[in-house]
Amino acid sequence: MITSYEDLPNIELPVDQEIKISDGTLREGAQMPGVVIKSEDKLQIYKYLHQIGVEKVENFLYSDRDREVTREMLDLGYDKPEVTGWIRASKSDIELVTSMGGIEETGILTSVSDCHLFDKIGFESREEAKESYLDVVQEVVDHGITPRCHVEDVTRAEIEDFVYPFIEEIIEIDSDAVIRICDTVNYGIPFEGDLPYSIPRLVRDIKDLGVEDIELHIHDDYGLGVANVLSGFWNGANWGNMTVMGLGERAGVAELEKVLLFLTDRLGVDKYDLTVLKDLANYLEENANYHVPYNKAVVGDNVFAHESGIHTDGVIKNPFTYEPYPPEMVGARRKFMIGDSSGREVIAKKTNDILERNDIDLTVDKKDKRIKEMYNEIQQLYEENKRSSCILDKEFKEILDKHFDKEV
Amino acid sequence: MITSYEDLPNIELPVDQEIKISDGTLREGAQMPGVVIKSEDKLQIYKYLHQIGVEKVENFLYSDRDREVTREMLDLGYDKPEVTGWIRASKSDIELVTSMGGIEETGILTSVSDCHLFDKIGFESREEAKESYLDVVQEVVDHGITPRCHVEDVTRAEIEDFVYPFIEEIIEIDSDAVIRICDTVNYGIPFEGDLPYSIPRLVRDIKDLGVEDIELHIHDDYGLGVANVLSGFWNGANWGNMTVMGLGERAGVAELEKVLLFLTDRLGVDKYDLTVLKDLANYLEENANYHVPYNKAVVGDNVFAHESGIHTDGVIKNPFTYEPYPPEMVGARRKFMIGDSSGREVIAKKTNDILERNDIDLTVDKKDKRIKEMYNEIQQLYEENKRSSCILDKEFKEILDKHFDKEV
Repeated sequence: MITSYEDLPNIELPVDQEIKISDGTLREGAQMPGVVIKSEDKLQIYKYLHQIGVEKVENFLYSDRDREVTREMLDLGYDKPEVTGWIRASKSDIELVTSMGGIEETGILTSVSDCHLFDKIGFESREEAKESYLDVVQEVVDHGITPRCHVEDVTRAEIEDFVYPFIEEIIEIDSDAVIRICDTVNYGIPFEGDLPYSIPRLVRDIKDLGVEDIELHIHDDYGLGVANVLSGFWNGANWGNMTVMGLGERAGVAELEKVLLFLTDRLGVDKYDLTVLKDLANYLEENANYHVPYNKAVVGDNVFAHESGIHTDGVIKNPFTYEPYPPEMVGARRKFMIGDSSGREVIAKKTNDILERNDIDLTVDKKDKRIKEMYNEIQQLYEENKRSSCILDKEFKEILDKHFDKEV
Repeated sequence: MITSYEDLPNIELPVDQEIKISDGTLREGAQMPGVVIKSEDKLQIYKYLHQIGVEKVENFLYSDRDREVTREMLDLGYDKPEVTGWIRASKSDIELVTSMGGIEETGILTSVSDCHLFDKIGFESREEAKESYLDVVQEVVDHGITPRCHVEDVTRAEIEDFVYPFIEEIIEIDSDAVIRICDTVNYGIPFEGDLPYSIPRLVRDIKDLGVEDIELHIHDDYGLGVANVLSGFWNGANWGNMTVMGLGERAGVAELEKVLLFLTDRLGVDKYDLTVLKDLANYLEENANYHVPYNKAVVGDNVFAHESGIHTDGVIKNPFTYEPYPPEMVGARRKFMIGDSSGREVIAKKTNDILERNDIDLTVDKKDKRIKEMYNEIQQLYEENKRSSCILDKEFKEILDKHFDKEV
C-alpha cells in the first residue's frame, strides 16, 4: 500500500560512486544573453551554493571584475564550493590561473568536434589541435594545477579516432585530470546507441580509458539536459555541472535544482540542503534580469499551486496525491488558486481557511448552498470568455462576503 | 568530417513503430493555474495543431463552453487532429461523449495508485475500483466509442497485482483500447530499473499484454518529461501526449515542441510542419496569460540568440558550431546581442550589418581600432557593476555613431 512518501523506495544507481556537483551559474549562467550577474550577486550566489553544499564552482578570470570577485570567494575560506578557473586552451591564459593564488583546478576549453576545430578555431588538422591542447594541459600540470578538460561538442565529434586517443594522452600527463563531457548542442541522448550520441556509451568508454573523474555538462536544446546528466550518473560518471534554473547559452543547460532534487529525493543522497532553492531562484529573479516561469520545476510559483477541480480535490484529501515531494523540502509553500477550472472543493477549502482566520466558528463543505452559489458566480466570470486570469485573494473575499454576509 | 547538419546521421529507434502525437494543451494546458485558454483561443490552437499535423486532441465536455468549442472543432471537418473526449470513470459522464456526435474516442480517467484509489476517490478495495472502471469501459465500448484508459499515477502504483490485470481486462473488452501511461508526479525514470518507476519496463510489459496503442503522458516535476516520452518510444510506445510549452498542472508536462523537434530533426520523421511552432508560442503568450521564458528550448527568444565572445565568434564563422538545427526549422530567427560577455567579433559583425543596411561601402574586422574602442566603451558600462541588461539596438547605434562619425 503506497499512500505516503515513506512508502516509496529509493532508487539505487547501478554503479556505486559518490556523486558530486559543480555549479556553472557564475560562468555559463552569466554568459546567457540578456542576463547580467553583477559581482556582488556572484558572491551572494556563491554563498547560497555553500549553504546548499555544492562541491565546486568555476569562474572566468579575464576581467578585473572576474578576478576581484574570485579573490573575494577564495577569501571567504569555505571548504565548499571549491573555486576553480576556466580558460581557453591557450598558453597565454594559464597565467590568469597561476597568478590568482589559491586555485588548484582549472577548466580548459578543449573543443573536439570538427566544426569547432576547423571552422571556429582554424586548426589545420586534428593532430595539430591535439598537440596544441596537450601542450597547455602539460604546462597547467607543471604548475601544480589539476586540469579539467572540457571536451566541447563531443556529441558531434569523431570519437574513436580523435577524442579517445586525446583523452588517453591527457590521463598519461595527469591521472587525476577531470574529463568534462560537454554536450554542447544537446545532441547527446540518454539511451544506449551509437557514438557520438549515446551518453551511456561515452561515459562507460571514457571510464574504461582510466578516467576517475567524469563530469557532465549538458545543454538543453532538445530538453534532454537533466536526463543526460542522470544517464551519465547511471553509467559511472561522478560529477554533474549544472546552473541555477539552467541559465546559459540558448536554451541553457541542465538545471542544478532538478538534479539536486533527484539525488536527494529519489536516490536518497543526504548531503545537500535544498531548503534555500526557492530563495536562490527568487534572488536571481530580483537581481539578474531573469523571470522565473510559473511552471518551472522545483522553483516555479505553480509547482505547489492547485487550481483545477480534480487536483485540488485530491490534494485537500492527501497532498501526496498530486505532489511529488513536500514543498518544505525546497523551501516552497502549497497554495490553492481559484480559476475557471476550479471546483467546489477548493472554493470550500479557501472559504474555510478564511473563516478560520477570522475566528468564525463555522465549517462548510462543497455541498453547501453558498459554496454552490459562489461556484456559479465564479463560473459566470469566465462565461462568454470575458475573464482570462485567476481570481485574486482579495476578489475571492469580496465574493465570499456577498454569500456569507451574516457570518463574516 | 562533421561540419554541417547533413553530416550527422539520424538516430534509428530500436523498435519499428509509427509514432503519433496527441496534444493536451486544450485540456491539461487549460488546467494550469494562472492560465486561462478562452474558447476562441482553443479553436485557434486547434488550427495551429492542424497545420503542424498533430494527430489527436482531447477536450473536456463538461461546460457549455467546452461543448460549443468542441462542436466548432468537429465542424471544421479536418482529418487531423482527431477530436476526442475526456471523462472521469463515471457512468454519468458517458453521456457527455455520446451526446456530442462525431466523437469516436474518449479518454477515461482510471486512477491506479493507492492514494488515488483510497484517499482521493474513496474506494474500499482495488477490486472494487477495477470493477467500477471496467463497467464504464464496457459501456463506452457498447456505444461504439474507443476507450483510452488513462492509468493515472501508474508510476506510484501496485503494478503486477493490480495494474497489469486491470489492463488485461480492458484489452479483453476492446482490443483497440488505448492505454495512456500517466506519469502523474514524474516518478517515472527513463532507465532500466524496478517497477513502478522504470518507463522502459512498464512500456515493454504493457506491450506484452497485447496492447497495440500505448501513449505517454509525463509530468515534469523532476525535469524528466521529454526523456520519459522518448524512453517510451524507444521501447515500443507509439503515442506521445504533450502540451505546447509543457503547460499543465504544477511543473507541467513534456513539451510538444521538444518532442516534435526530436522526432523531426533527430529521428528523421518527416510528417510534421514545425515552422509554426514559434508563432504558436507567441500566440499563447499574447492570449493565455503565459510568459515564454527566454531560454525555453525551441520557442524561447534566446534559443538562437548569441551574446558571449566565444559563441558569437563561432556562430559568425559557421552557425552549425553553436546551433543544433537551423532556426528556420521552427520559424525562429538568429540574433546577435551585445552584453557584458560580448567580444569584439560580434561588435564588428553588428557594425558591418548596420553599415550594409545604410549602404555604406565599408567592412571592419575585430582588430579595427574603432571596434576596439567600442568594445572598451561597452565594457565600461558594465564596470563597477552599474549595468545589468543588454545593450539595445538603438543604444548600439548611438555608440557606433560616435566612433564612425565620418562614415555613417
